[in-house]
Amino acid sequence: MTYVPYHEKGTITLLAGPCSIEDAEQMEAVGEALERAGLRWIRGGAFKPRTSPYSFQGLGEEGLRLITDVGRRHGLKTITEIVDTAHIDLVLKYVDALQIGTRNMANFELLKAIGQATAEGHQPILFKRGMAATIDEWLSAAEYLTMGGNPNVMLCERGLRTFETATRFTLDISAVPVIHKRSLLPICVDASHPAGQVDLVPSLAKAAVAAGCDALMIEVHPNPAKAKSDGPQQLTIPQFEELLAELRLIAAAVGKTIV
Amino acid sequence: MTYVPYHEKGTITLLAGPCSIEDAEQMEAVGEALERAGLRWIRGGAFKPRTSPYSFQGLGEEGLRLITDVGRRHGLKTITEIVDTAHIDLVLKYVDALQIGTRNMANFELLKAIGQATAEGHQPILFKRGMAATIDEWLSAAEYLTMGGNPNVMLCERGLRTFETATRFTLDISAVPVIHKRSLLPICVDASHPAGQVDLVPSLAKAAVAAGCDALMIEVHPNPAKAKSDGPQQLTIPQFEELLAELRLIAAAVGKTIV
Amino acid sequence: MTYVPYHEKGTITLLAGPCSIEDAEQMEAVGEALERAGLRWIRGGAFKPRTSPYSFQGLGEEGLRLITDVGRRHGLKTITEIVDTAHIDLVLKYVDALQIGTRNMANFELLKAIGQATAEGHQPILFKRGMAATIDEWLSAAEYLTMGGNPNVMLCERGLRTFETATRFTLDISAVPVIHKRSLLPICVDASHPAGQVDLVPSLAKAAVAAGCDALMIEVHPNPAKAKSDGPQQLTIPQFEELLAELRLIAAAVGKTIV
Amino acid sequence: MTYVPYHEKGTITLLAGPCSIEDAEQMEAVGEALERAGLRWIRGGAFKPRTSPYSFQGLGEEGLRLITDVGRRHGLKTITEIVDTAHIDLVLKYVDALQIGTRNMANFELLKAIGQATAEGHQPILFKRGMAATIDEWLSAAEYLTMGGNPNVMLCERGLRTFETATRFTLDISAVPVIHKRSLLPICVDASHPAGQVDLVPSLAKAAVAAGCDALMIEVHPNPAKAKSDGPQQLTIPQFEELLAELRLIAAAVGKTIV
Repeated sequence: MTYVPYHEKGTITLLAGPCSIEDAEQMEAVGEALERAGLRWIRGGAFKPRTSPYSFQGLGEEGLRLITDVGRRHGLKTITEIVDTAHIDLVLKYVDALQIGTRNMANFELLKAIGQATAEGHQPILFKRGMAATIDEWLSAAEYLTMGGNPNVMLCERGLRTFETATRFTLDISAVPVIHKRSLLPICVDASHPAGQVDLVPSLAKAAVAAGCDALMIEVHPNPAKAKSDGPQQLTIPQFEELLAELRLIAAAVGKTIV
Repeated sequence: MTYVPYHEKGTITLLAGPCSIEDAEQMEAVGEALERAGLRWIRGGAFKPRTSPYSFQGLGEEGLRLITDVGRRHGLKTITEIVDTAHIDLVLKYVDALQIGTRNMANFELLKAIGQATAEGHQPILFKRGMAATIDEWLSAAEYLTMGGNPNVMLCERGLRTFETATRFTLDISAVPVIHKRSLLPICVDASHPAGQVDLVPSLAKAAVAAGCDALMIEVHPNPAKAKSDGPQQLTIPQFEELLAELRLIAAAVGKTIV
Repeated sequence: MTYVPYHEKGTITLLAGPCSIEDAEQMEAVGEALERAGLRWIRGGAFKPRTSPYSFQGLGEEGLRLITDVGRRHGLKTITEIVDTAHIDLVLKYVDALQIGTRNMANFELLKAIGQATAEGHQPILFKRGMAATIDEWLSAAEYLTMGGNPNVMLCERGLRTFETATRFTLDISAVPVIHKRSLLPICVDASHPAGQVDLVPSLAKAAVAAGCDALMIEVHPNPAKAKSDGPQQLTIPQFEELLAELRLIAAAVGKTIV
Repeated sequence: MTYVPYHEKGTITLLAGPCSIEDAEQMEAVGEALERAGLRWIRGGAFKPRTSPYSFQGLGEEGLRLITDVGRRHGLKTITEIVDTAHIDLVLKYVDALQIGTRNMANFELLKAIGQATAEGHQPILFKRGMAATIDEWLSAAEYLTMGGNPNVMLCERGLRTFETATRFTLDISAVPVIHKRSLLPICVDASHPAGQVDLVPSLAKAAVAAGCDALMIEVHPNPAKAKSDGPQQLTIPQFEELLAELRLIAAAVGKTIV
């Protein structure tokens, strides 16, 4: 696998796709829309860390196969979350990039193992902030990934656990300039998880672009009402396209292009 | 005093000025810059709520006189913070609008008294969110202000108290769309207090404009290194002018003008 | 008014009574129970800071009269909350001690005025921690009270605003040893407000006694179901008496007496 | 392995021992003291989840061997933390009970695998609360452990991430009565991690006993100044013995025995 840098100066990489990979039709609809929009990546979860053991846990390898297929068909790089050391080899057989979720930010054994497994391939790693982690703890944990020799780590702010209940999490937009000041690693903003509701996503995504993010994650689903996870926060494809047009205007105003 | 609405559709009102009113020279430098920039308001504190009783507590009435003078000279409306029921008549003699700070969001006696004192004049009130208040509590407290008959209340998000120490407070940028969804009151964002440091202010201010704020508060001081309060977070006049140019581009991208 | 020290070495002062003073019958029932239990103080609110302006705001001076009457009849010292500088003289005419609530911890004008008004009388002041205040900020704010010359300030931990919703606030029990380490001021624990529900109050009260508190605040009401504020967290008189018996065993185990 | 219930009605199980297992001499000193004190368990970490990859990461299998040896010599059951699915078989070969730490509360793959691996043996599992997890999320995650058929799970409150910096974490003492109200699982309190400093540990441990905990975790080390992790919060053996005497008085006052 060749080196696929997340971040090119002057661009904002958009990582869009459904929360969970559910079936071929769902993935095809999203992949088709992303290609049409001129984007480069598709995201989707195959192994889902769910608060309740009785919730949908993801399709596993079948999900990896589906995202890989749709990625090839539409010329999109693929990224998926990895949740256990036992899955690393499997996941790396399929996708282009790995995501480490907020619940595993301090799962240091997983970080060490991913750092080692990608030490040669330099596969991009999207490293989400723990929902109660300080920026210092997050940067320190990122060293578990980079110390093996893979420099291709992108941080991802996804909202903090606070007392406020009007949103699912409190997006710490300040993390964007703080990371730029303290670290050379690029910074992504996940606009969907902190919002928790579709109608708040556009403001958060726009704020992230204006604040200077290097990448943006947005959940999109052809039929959010039937989604197996996080339905209320996923945009429909038309909502996504409308938002993308607005984001491109703001990106231009800060001298960047969304890809 | 005539009705001075904070918020005109399509505009973002910029409330700039120093943290504390310190002397005539300081205020003149700021006032001159704001007029030159085509802005409408100047802010500055005369009564300062300070964590330590040994810190500078503000110039009091002398400060009110200074901000009023500079406002008249440069055609700027004036806004200042009010911290006690005993000061209401005095403050209303001088300034155009009142600010209620985060530490007094749940000082309900102050809210009641201000609501009554402005029931006829409809002076604008900038009502900051308590640093640990939910949006529901904030909106409920705002009713202490409006129940007397003054509808001219603008909410102001200024950052939450969280565990993160890289910033002074965690700006809750989500408050902008949440307020637009739940309330008819306009929403201002204070970009200076959550940052706590000058180099983080621009990203927060840009994020606020892109997120859809109706007003923006930014602290500016001719010589922040000598400021009597909050020096580290106040922009110099050239920094402020540079930021304003950038903000105007983003405002244009979202179909608004900064005034 | 003579000096009434809250804290005597080896004792734990119990500050019990209803959330709000409602009528003579209610206060008499509580006062009678407290005298019978051998306690020294009665508490009750006459000016209530309520989140909503449409909630019961307290009886005002009539409430002060009721608590003073019942205190005299049953040999109990009285304490009530003060919420505005304009009420200081009035409140000091009636009660023995003042409480400053969590929402006014950073109402520095109120603190200054109370510090001055009690500079000679040395009336005890119970100073609650702001729900989002660090211990450092709280101790710094306490200096607004003591700097006028009244040393008779007791701190009161009453729970922090956190993300947990199973309780109304998160009692910071660690504040007891931290205050003992950093300050000479005695420390009270309010077991009722953080609980928010009657069945959690006993554990919190016991924890506070074991942790080494110097005073304890517990809300008790003859008929909590009909209380005009905070009904769900107020103990009935029999519940209170049962808890007191248990607390006395724990107090004895740590070498103290509850008074 | 036979069923070793953590919790016997009327007892408080004390889980004491060093933060990290360091060498035979250290473990022997602790084991000897615990046996002398009439206790039943010894704890110690062999796999350490550390914020920085450059901190001591634990002795691994060598540590498991050391704790097992000292346990046998002194008639103590053993408990250690497990941090990766790949270690489960190894760890279960050595110790009597497993601890899942705060950073892995939402590492659901680990929970599932431990639940399955202990489905027959019913080895006790101490399940710590995530530092930013609500009680509801914690109880929901516990079902990943129990759904396989091992009912022998004990919850452990160990402090929340809040804004307060005077302590390492904010112990949520209310979790004790809340868990008793909502769950049949017993509840342990870790008095050492929230304190972060030796001199705060006694108050927290006493509070936990008075609040009704079913078990208590305290870190003790023969020479905390030389500890390879968490030195500042570990008690010396004499400090531990003094505290234990005090805890036994409080336990007696609430009708319990410490074992």
